[in-house]
Amino acid sequence: MQTLVIVSHPALADSNVQRFLWESLPAEGATWHHLESVYPDGQIDRETEQQQLLQYDRIIFQFPFYWYSSPALLKQWQDVVLTEGFAYGPDRSRLSGKEFGLIVALGVNEREYQAGGKEGFTISELTRPYQAMARKCGMSYLPTLVVSQFGYLSDSKRKELLIAYQQYLSKENDASLKTAENWFRLQLQKVGKSGLSEEDQRLVEQLVSLMEDNREQLDDLAWTLGQMDGSQLG
Amino acid sequence: MQTLVIVSHPALADSNVQRFLWESLPAEGATWHHLESVYPDGQIDRETEQQQLLQYDRIIFQFPFYWYSSPALLKQWQDVVLTEGFAYGPDRSRLSGKEFGLIVALGVNEREYQAGGKEGFTISELTRPYQAMARKCGMSYLPTLVVSQFGYLSDSKRKELLIAYQQYLSKENDASLKTAENWFRLQLQKVGKSGLSEEDQRLVEQLVSLMEDNREQLDDLAWTLGQMDGSQLG
Repeated sequence: MQTLVIVSHPALADSNVQRFLWESLPAEGATWHHLESVYPDGQIDRETEQQQLLQYDRIIFQFPFYWYSSPALLKQWQDVVLTEGFAYGPDRSRLSGKEFGLIVALGVNEREYQAGGKEGFTISELTRPYQAMARKCGMSYLPTLVVSQFGYLSDSKRKELLIAYQQYLSKENDASLKTAENWFRLQLQKVGKSGLSEEDQRLVEQLVSLMEDNREQLDDLAWTLGQMDGSQLG
Repeated sequence: MQTLVIVSHPALADSNVQRFLWESLPAEGATWHHLESVYPDGQIDRETEQQQLLQYDRIIFQFPFYWYSSPALLKQWQDVVLTEGFAYGPDRSRLSGKEFGLIVALGVNEREYQAGGKEGFTISELTRPYQAMARKCGMSYLPTLVVSQFGYLSDSKRKELLIAYQQYLSKENDASLKTAENWFRLQLQKVGKSGLSEEDQRLVEQLVSLMEDNREQLDDLAWTLGQMDGSQLG
């Protein structure tokens, strides 16, 4: 799967969370496309952008939540690039069947985004315009990845964020344990090849092997349960 | 009441609906502020904009609905002008108590903006970010004025739009018949002063007088009903 991460942030270098995400980018399969760097004059190249979009399976908008939406340049990108005849219209959208998701960085705690919270509305409510956009373009909408108050995250929470980010960019959109296992196994196998000590390599191989054994047991159990249900129902 | 109409449209001269609204602007009490004309280079002057906002009771964003939101320059305006300490923050917002509203021009029929319609979501759902903004700034949110498919409007529908637009900018936010009457009377009185023929002036005076008589009768009726209710309840 190929993922395009369209990042919009007017002062990227000053953002700790954006730097962390940049450093967490998977080595393969994901392209980082920071609009303010590519278009410092704000003049977006429609043709180049449209051709680029066609090469990806998953398209992500990643930005700080400014006034409950993106910075202006990403909005400009939407208005320039997602034209009638390309992104929607009487003919089939050229983006049809792709996946679309948001990665939103919040300055306040996500808890405030609810009725009774300081912000009053949920992230799902406030991002309706993106949901409507994905819908019009025939793209399937992924659950949003929210990063809230990065500065206060503990080291272990940051490690969780790193995993969540990499999964958001490269894991099949499927909440099953099996898909998560497959994704982890793939990551562990990649690690195994990249110059670890022999001891660490053995550890990684053991982890992979353990996960595979667990999976086989779970599959057996599921099969047995299936048989029992079948005999009871029959 | 003083109203600031912040207009965002990257090609205003080509827009029939925006020209119509410009020509429909009330003679007094409303200021037209077209961002793309004032800031062709996109460099918004925070200080000037903030000072300007303080002089108005009602603040309107008027724009074509591009990807379920405003053109980029209005988003830029929000991010530059509505700063912490001015528009929100631990101290009282400088905008607190003002009224805020949207005038949104749609290219498709408003009917499509509902579950099951082509756009899938209502205008109220899609404009949540503005509702959250008004809420954070302590401004009261007016019902949105939607102008849909201006090109197809009949002459009489355009006249209705003209009245609706002028009321949106200058009428007290109150759905009562009495407030509407007061607004019309004020408009008619202004007309009376502006060089009509004697015959037309008499007509206008008669209309105003008729409306005042109607109002007196309605007030009497309301008073009588109130007395009856009181005696029955007592």
